[in-house]
Amino acid sequence: MDTNLRFRSAAEDDTGLILRFIKALAEFEHLSDKVSADEALLREWLFDKKIAEVIFAVADGKEVGFALFFHSFSTFLGKAGIYLEDLYVIPEFRGLGYGKALMKKLARIAAERGCGRFEWQCLDWNRAGIDFYLSLGAEPLTDWTLYRVSGKSLLDLAYEDT
Amino acid sequence: MDTNLRFRSAAEDDTGLILRFIKALAEFEHLSDKVSADEALLREWLFDKKIAEVIFAVADGKEVGFALFFHSFSTFLGKAGIYLEDLYVIPEFRGLGYGKALMKKLARIAAERGCGRFEWQCLDWNRAGIDFYLSLGAEPLTDWTLYRVSGKSLLDLAYEDT
Repeated sequence: MDTNLRFRSAAEDDTGLILRFIKALAEFEHLSDKVSADEALLREWLFDKKIAEVIFAVADGKEVGFALFFHSFSTFLGKAGIYLEDLYVIPEFRGLGYGKALMKKLARIAAERGCGRFEWQCLDWNRAGIDFYLSLGAEPLTDWTLYRVSGKSLLDLAYEDT
Repeated sequence: MDTNLRFRSAAEDDTGLILRFIKALAEFEHLSDKVSADEALLREWLFDKKIAEVIFAVADGKEVGFALFFHSFSTFLGKAGIYLEDLYVIPEFRGLGYGKALMKKLARIAAERGCGRFEWQCLDWNRAGIDFYLSLGAEPLTDWTLYRVSGKSLLDLAYEDT
């Protein structure tokens, strides 16, 4: 592990870099066509409305990866959790422990804030990601499936007399 | 649908009722042993720290169900979503449309707040739940799995030199 590694919270000036990292992760996931985020939206929701937080891993002054997360809530535990939406390390800096360092940093944030859980989702074909997460002690919740309404389905559910 | 149905946001005084609904849902899910929430924790995280919101469905003056939700964030959309953690209707009021009314209410909240998604998880054995969600236009995200660290695993990841 690079001893020059540090973490810093993103500020509004970082919006362009955050968007580049989001797009790079989407490309890795073969989901680039799903990205409609732009800098104005990220600025509004991350820095005005503060819906999520971003931490960069910085090695020798360069941002080599990031984690974007927000607070979830567990009714079973009666407390908040940390939900990791995006974790990304740029390709030429992979295999050096930065991803793990970011995960450990988020776990510390969760513990310090009194959160009971730290969760995220992984694509089922991403074997390297799954092995990495298992190596960190994570448990897959294989008996739950995520359901989603968005776009027209969301508006129909909201406003149509279905 | 009961024309006397209305919705109201929970206040701190409702903490006892929220806990009863959480426990009743956990019992339905055969997961009662996972519930460590108590009124003090719910008060702290829901009403002091405001990590999540609760809406009751009220029919003829009686709370017949509730939804507990919080804001998620989608990096692909660049905006918040609504994440539904708990949806519950008390047994003697099921089949009357209250669950659907709560889902439609949440979809309207999502749309009004400019959120791009409305999401939740369902247990894979809960066929009635799955059919209900599909009938609302929801899409199952079958290629993602949730991973979690909590309890000792969370503290180990946070503080152990792994």
